[in-house]
Amino acid sequence: MVLKLVGILISLLPLLSWSLDNGLARTPPMGWLAWERFRCNTDCVNDPENCISERLFMQMADLLVKDGYKAAGYEYIIVDDCWLAKTRDSKGRLQADPERFPSGIKVLADYVHSKGLKFGIYEDYGNYTCAGYPGILGYLETDANTFAEWGVDYVKLDGCYSHPIDMDQGYPEFGYHLNLTGRPMIYSCSWPVYQIYSGIEPNYTAIKGACNLWRNFDDIQDSWQSIQSVIDYYGDNQDIIVPQAGPGHWNDPDMLIIGNFGLSYEQSKSQMAMWAIWASPLLMSVDLRTIRNDYKAILKNKKIIAVNQDILGIQGRRIYKDRGIEIWARPITPVIRNDFSYCIAFLNRRTDGTPSEVSVINRELGLTHAGGYRVDDLYTDKDYGILSPEDKITVDVNPSGVVMLRFTVASAFQKAPYLPSAQGSQVNLFGIPAHIAHDNHKTLPQRLQWLAGFPHFHLTGLNETDIVTSNETGKLQLLQTQAEIILFLIQQQFIRDFRNWRRLHERKRLKNSGYNQANRSQNWKT
Amino acid sequence: MVLKLVGILISLLPLLSWSLDNGLARTPPMGWLAWERFRCNTDCVNDPENCISERLFMQMADLLVKDGYKAAGYEYIIVDDCWLAKTRDSKGRLQADPERFPSGIKVLADYVHSKGLKFGIYEDYGNYTCAGYPGILGYLETDANTFAEWGVDYVKLDGCYSHPIDMDQGYPEFGYHLNLTGRPMIYSCSWPVYQIYSGIEPNYTAIKGACNLWRNFDDIQDSWQSIQSVIDYYGDNQDIIVPQAGPGHWNDPDMLIIGNFGLSYEQSKSQMAMWAIWASPLLMSVDLRTIRNDYKAILKNKKIIAVNQDILGIQGRRIYKDRGIEIWARPITPVIRNDFSYCIAFLNRRTDGTPSEVSVINRELGLTHAGGYRVDDLYTDKDYGILSPEDKITVDVNPSGVVMLRFTVASAFQKAPYLPSAQGSQVNLFGIPAHIAHDNHKTLPQRLQWLAGFPHFHLTGLNETDIVTSNETGKLQLLQTQAEIILFLIQQQFIRDFRNWRRLHERKRLKNSGYNQANRSQNWKT
Repeated sequence: MVLKLVGILISLLPLLSWSLDNGLARTPPMGWLAWERFRCNTDCVNDPENCISERLFMQMADLLVKDGYKAAGYEYIIVDDCWLAKTRDSKGRLQADPERFPSGIKVLADYVHSKGLKFGIYEDYGNYTCAGYPGILGYLETDANTFAEWGVDYVKLDGCYSHPIDMDQGYPEFGYHLNLTGRPMIYSCSWPVYQIYSGIEPNYTAIKGACNLWRNFDDIQDSWQSIQSVIDYYGDNQDIIVPQAGPGHWNDPDMLIIGNFGLSYEQSKSQMAMWAIWASPLLMSVDLRTIRNDYKAILKNKKIIAVNQDILGIQGRRIYKDRGIEIWARPITPVIRNDFSYCIAFLNRRTDGTPSEVSVINRELGLTHAGGYRVDDLYTDKDYGILSPEDKITVDVNPSGVVMLRFTVASAFQKAPYLPSAQGSQVNLFGIPAHIAHDNHKTLPQRLQWLAGFPHFHLTGLNETDIVTSNETGKLQLLQTQAEIILFLIQQQFIRDFRNWRRLHERKRLKNSGYNQANRSQNWKT
Repeated sequence: MVLKLVGILISLLPLLSWSLDNGLARTPPMGWLAWERFRCNTDCVNDPENCISERLFMQMADLLVKDGYKAAGYEYIIVDDCWLAKTRDSKGRLQADPERFPSGIKVLADYVHSKGLKFGIYEDYGNYTCAGYPGILGYLETDANTFAEWGVDYVKLDGCYSHPIDMDQGYPEFGYHLNLTGRPMIYSCSWPVYQIYSGIEPNYTAIKGACNLWRNFDDIQDSWQSIQSVIDYYGDNQDIIVPQAGPGHWNDPDMLIIGNFGLSYEQSKSQMAMWAIWASPLLMSVDLRTIRNDYKAILKNKKIIAVNQDILGIQGRRIYKDRGIEIWARPITPVIRNDFSYCIAFLNRRTDGTPSEVSVINRELGLTHAGGYRVDDLYTDKDYGILSPEDKITVDVNPSGVVMLRFTVASAFQKAPYLPSAQGSQVNLFGIPAHIAHDNHKTLPQRLQWLAGFPHFHLTGLNETDIVTSNETGKLQLLQTQAEIILFLIQQQFIRDFRNWRRLHERKRLKNSGYNQANRSQNWKT
C-alpha cells in the first residue's frame, strides 16, 4: 500500500503548481514579534526594560507560556531589527550586539525552545538592515547556516538597501540556502512590498514558491487609521492577492497591534476579526507585561483563532461595501457537498457614535446551503440557532467595530460525524487543522507509515459526504470518491514532505557537483 | 462700606468691555449631552434602551449622581435634537414628542432638578432643527418663555436651516429673550461655526457678548482622527480664538467622546487633557450605563478637572509642534507676583508604537519663576518635586497619548497661605474657584452683604503677595494693593450681578414702553 501511494504521488508531481515545500506554516504562523511595539530601542542604559535585548525576548517567551498565549496557538518568539552588532565577526559571521545579547542568539533560541516555543530572527536582503546593521548580501549561505546552527525556526527577511528588481533572484536564493541547511525555517519575505513601492508588479507565483508569508503593504503603525489602510488595501486588491494564500503560503498584513496605545477595544476586535478573515499570520507586537485583560482576551479568542487557522486556508473577501459598512466572508470548514461553512465579518467604518444596524438575507451573502447554517457570534457567544438561506440576519455593529459570525453548514451538526468509520484523530483530519498541520512525523517514511495506519484507507459511505478544498489556483476541487479522498490527503498534507525530501537529496547532489551561482534560480526551481 | 463699594463699582462700568452678563458659566460648564453617542435614534419600539426619550435622560441623571460624576462637577443633563414633536401645539408652543416624552419636558426638568442637577435643551435658530423638527424662527419670545416655564437651565441653539449672515442679529436676539425671562440659562451658540463654513469671519466680540459658549469647528465624531482635527484647529487658529475665552464665555470644541467606541485609553486621556488646556466645556456624550471603569476614571479625574475649571479661565496655547510632538501650556492659579502656575500637556501625535521621550528645560516652556515650581503628573500622581527654571523635565509620552503636568509656582507651597488673615472660605477666593463661581448669593444686595462679611476688607501684609488675573482683553493685570484686591473681587465676581440687575430693570422698562423689534439689537446692547 505504501509503495503504491508513492507511485501515485510521484506521477502527480508535474500536474501541481510549484510552491514552497518546507512543510511549514500549513496554517498561518502565530507568535510574537518585537517591531511594532519595541522598534529599535537600543538604550539599555536608560531604558533597560524596553530595549531590544535578550532579556526582553526571554520575558516575552515566559509570558507567552505563563499567560496562556501558547495554549491558544501562539508559538514563535521573533526578534526584529537591531539585534545585531554593527560588524560581522572575524570569520564573516553575524553576531548579536554583545551588550544587549551577552549570551548570544543560540542561548536565546535554546531558552525559547526550552519553553516549548519556536524562535525567529530578522535579517535583510541588502547591504544593511533597515536600521543600518549588517545585511545578508554577500553572505547568504553563511547566514543561512548561522541561523540553522543557532536553532532558528523562522526568518523574517526585510528589503532595505537592496534593489527591488534583484529580489526576484535574491529572495529565492536565500530561501534555497535556508532549505539547504536541512533545518525547517519559516521564511517571511518583504519581497512584494518593495517591488510594489518601486512600481514593479510582483510575480506572486514565484513569491509563493519561495516564501511562507510575504508583506505586500505598508508597515503597520499604532493607529486605527493604519488598520483601515490595510483593510482598504486587502479589499481593493483582493482579486490579485486572495488567490495567493493557502496552506504554506500567506499574505502578511503585518503585526497585530492589539493591546498597545492606538486602538480602542472595538478597533482591536476589528483587527483580530479581519486578520482571521484573511488567514493572516497572527504576530502580536505588544508588551505582554502590561497588556490589559480585555485585550488579552481578544488575542486569545479561541473561536476567532480557529477561523484564522482553518485548515482550508482560503483567504476571505470583501463582498459588500457601502456607506461605511463592509461585509467580509471567508469559506471555512466544515464543508458539506460543495457548500462551505463561512465566517462573516460585519465591519462598521462609520464614526457617528451609535451602532449601525445591518440586516441581510443569508442567501445574499452566498449562504445557500439547503440544510441551513448554525449561526453563532464569535465574540459574544450569542447563538442565533439554525438559519435557512432565506432567513434574515440582523446585527448591531458598533462604530469602528465588528460583528463576527460563524455560519456552520447545519448538516455537520444534524448528522453523525461524516466519516463513518471515524476513530480518534481521524476526525481531526477534516475538522480541526492542528493535528495535521503540526503532527510530529518529520520524515516522509514516518509520515507514510502514519498515513497507512489510518482507517480512511478503507473508508465507506463516502457517497453521503464530500470533501472540498482549495487547490493552488484558488479554484475549488470536489472530491467524491475514496481514491480522491486519499489523493486529497496526499496532495494537501504529505506531498510536500516527499518533495522536500527529494529536493534535499537533489540539492545535496547539486552541491556536491558544484552549484552554479549564476544559474541558481533556474537550477533549484526545476 | 457697602455703599462706598457700590460707588466704585458703578464708576468702573464704562471702562469694562461688554460681555454676556447672565452670571453663568464663570468656569466652563460641565455635564452630559446626548448627541454624539445617541444621535437621532427615535426608534423606541425596537431600541427602547437607546432611543431619545425621557427614560434615557432620567437614567443618565440618575447615573450622573450615583456614579460620582456630579460630585466631580458634572452638573447639566442636556437634551439634543429629536426631542420635539413634528409640529407646535395649537398655541404655537413647542412640544415634546408625545410617545418618547410622555411626561413632557417640565416633568423631565423637574426630575433632573430633584437630583440636584440642571437641565439643558436643544433648539435651532432656523425654520427647522438639523433633524427636521420645528425651529425657533418666528417664535423667539414664545420659545424663550416656554424654556423658562419648563425650568430649562441651558439652551444649545444650533444653526441649521438659517442664513449664517442672519445669525449676527438672530443669536443675540434669542439671547435677549432668554435674559428677559429672568431665568438664568446658559446660552450655547453654533453661530461662528456656520459663519466660518460660509466664509464669514465671525465677530467674536459680538459672539462672546451674547453667548456663554460657542462652537467654531466641526461636529465631533467617534474617532481619534476627529479629535486630532479639533486639536489642529485649536492650535492653528489660537491667535484668533484663545483671546475670546474667559469666565462666562468659552470656545466649545464639542463633546467628550471618552468611553465610546473610537478612542483608545491613551487617546481618551489626550482628549480630557486638551479640553482642560483649552478651558473647554466638559460635556460627556457616552452611555453611562456601560462605560468601563478606566474611562470613568478619566472623566472624573479631579486634578484634570481642576485645571479645566481654573478660575482665571485663560485658554491654553500650543507652544511647540515638531515631528508629531506638541507641547501645550495653560496659565493657571496660583499666581505669585506676575508668575503664573502652568499646566503643560506633552502630546504625542506619532503612531510608531513606542513612547517618545521629550526633554526640555523649564525656562524654554516659559517657566521662569525664580522660586521654582512644584511639578506633579496629573494622571499618574508622580511627584517631580520642586524644579527650577533651569532644570530639565523629561517625560515619556505614549503614542497618541499625553503627559499632563502641573507646574505650581513654588512659593505657594513654601510660604504660609498668602492671605495672612485667611479664615475658612476666604482662602478659596484665591485658590479654588468653586466657592466663588457657584456661591448661592443670587441678588446684588445679597452678594454685597456676603462680600462685606469677608475678612479681606481688612487684609494685611499684601506687600508680600500679589494677585494676577486676566482682564477681558486677555492682557494681564497686576494688583498689588489692598484696594486693588477689593477692586479685583468686585470686577471679577460681583460686577456682573449688578449689571444684570440693572439690565433686567432697564429691559422691563423698555418692554413696558414698547420694544421696537426692528432696532432690537441696538436697543438691548446699549
